Amino acid sequence: MSLTGRYVAVIGPADTARPSDLARATELGRLLAEAGAVVLTGGHHGVMRAAAAGVDSADGVSIGLLPGLARDEGAPEHTYLLPTGLGELRNGLLVRAADAVVAVGCSWGTLSEIALARRTGVPLVLIDPWDLPEDVGVVVASAGEAVDAVVSQLG
Amino acid sequence: MSLTGRYVAVIGPADTARPSDLARATELGRLLAEAGAVVLTGGHHGVMRAAAAGVDSADGVSIGLLPGLARDEGAPEHTYLLPTGLGELRNGLLVRAADAVVAVGCSWGTLSEIALARRTGVPLVLIDPWDLPEDVGVVVASAGEAVDAVVSQLG
Amino acid sequence: MSLTGRYVAVIGPADTARPSDLARATELGRLLAEAGAVVLTGGHHGVMRAAAAGVDSADGVSIGLLPGLARDEGAPEHTYLLPTGLGELRNGLLVRAADAVVAVGCSWGTLSEIALARRTGVPLVLIDPWDLPEDVGVVVASAGEAVDAVVSQLG
Amino acid sequence: MSLTGRYVAVIGPADTARPSDLARATELGRLLAEAGAVVLTGGHHGVMRAAAAGVDSADGVSIGLLPGLARDEGAPEHTYLLPTGLGELRNGLLVRAADAVVAVGCSWGTLSEIALARRTGVPLVLIDPWDLPEDVGVVVASAGEAVDAVVSQLG
Repeated sequence: MSLTGRYVAVIGPADTARPSDLARATELGRLLAEAGAVVLTGGHHGVMRAAAAGVDSADGVSIGLLPGLARDEGAPEHTYLLPTGLGELRNGLLVRAADAVVAVGCSWGTLSEIALARRTGVPLVLIDPWDLPEDVGVVVASAGEAVDAVVSQLG
Repeated sequence: MSLTGRYVAVIGPADTARPSDLARATELGRLLAEAGAVVLTGGHHGVMRAAAAGVDSADGVSIGLLPGLARDEGAPEHTYLLPTGLGELRNGLLVRAADAVVAVGCSWGTLSEIALARRTGVPLVLIDPWDLPEDVGVVVASAGEAVDAVVSQLG
Repeated sequence: MSLTGRYVAVIGPADTARPSDLARATELGRLLAEAGAVVLTGGHHGVMRAAAAGVDSADGVSIGLLPGLARDEGAPEHTYLLPTGLGELRNGLLVRAADAVVAVGCSWGTLSEIALARRTGVPLVLIDPWDLPEDVGVVVASAGEAVDAVVSQLG
Repeated sequence: MSLTGRYVAVIGPADTARPSDLARATELGRLLAEAGAVVLTGGHHGVMRAAAAGVDSADGVSIGLLPGLARDEGAPEHTYLLPTGLGELRNGLLVRAADAVVAVGCSWGTLSEIALARRTGVPLVLIDPWDLPEDVGVVVASAGEAVDAVVSQLG
């Protein structure tokens, strides 16, 4: 099972992340890194920071695309941090730069990324999302299943 | 009841707009124009075009922010059409440029705009949206009620 | 001589505009409006504001694309003002949305727009630019000649 | 002399790069990597590819921010490639994400980045630029001097 050379975005809430979101994001980051993926995030705290910490624990690479202009706004667990100055429009940039997207939990910002991924056809896996009425993508129960689903979709 | 000097974005599906969405969008465009608002849209067909036609019927002004680089991709019912070349990121631009957003129907692209409006605090009114699990904004049943709700929020 | 249905961006310095730049921008705005063009600007003061004032004096239409998120940052002489929140990246948006660009005077921000217009092939006319070593476009001496040159290029 | 933790953008022509530009870009990439910098480029060929090759020869890290939507448009010498879909607006993103910018040679696209760097105050070093009439930044004669100048400005 390899995601070498693949870019996987991990998205999810910053301020409203639950402890379960954070735990899953860290495990997800670790597993994606072990599978060889480059992990992309929005660079901030909450799920983003937790995912970057997981990547770091496996000596992997994470790149955070920040909404603001200051690199030091980013969570230092990221390997690389790139300020975009695009505000919330960086959500769209994150989806574009990714080969697949995994959402951990939900928030309005996260939902904008989920919707853009669906709109533009980027493979999407969700752990514990909000109830959404349409076929939103592959919903799984754990970080391990999420990585399996990404591999399956990108394989 | 006046929206003079206010910018209201009308968002909604292009390809998947239902006849009821189109009828409501046209009435909404007309009522917003009569109330003095400048109407912003994504410049394309479906709900966007229907809203622009309603605005035009009341001699109002609509500005379409197109995702592509070609002005002639836009629906000609718009008063002005501006290519952005940002692709789906122009959804975020539309929300930013608006004082309030009215969604007519839903689609994944529309949902990305709804979510961004909620994320960034832009007043939001919805007619016939998808079932969304969180407090998404003011849901109303008709174009007339939508205009009342916009006036109430911006007043 | 008609520019009806055409969008012409007027670019130039804000803080460092000279009195001669402002006078030419106002005349240029007036002449473009009289020829039927929609005038686009960056929405701020200096050359942008002067051009919008000229447009307004001829009952024409100007649309200012602001770098920030607040509409009231814009010069009120504009007919419409759209916040983009893109910062200096709105310079590129302005060039994209225009059928032709006229630069009045120069500054680093203006030069970034001139260079993007040349890079992307948008017709470009310049009044009193900096000395630039390459064939930068059509350099003219007055607002009247600039409008003639735009008509000639778009004709 | 260390640039550890610093992000330096190397900009320059793609199609119109001269052999001397390419040679300097490769040496510059190598020296920046040896000094510990992360090198950012526009991801394409010409100066961008040459710089990435130099970085790679020193086992450094380069990140290419591509204008299009396809990762495989990028030059494979880059360590990481991120599609932005912003077209020429990614030039502005590149300048924003960098702590300093080094231009090797010139072109209209390069000039737009030089002008944005000057406009937004990002430290700028130039090797063999076009003749520009204003104080454009620190002009040097070689890749080695460019790295010294970057260190001096960021120190």
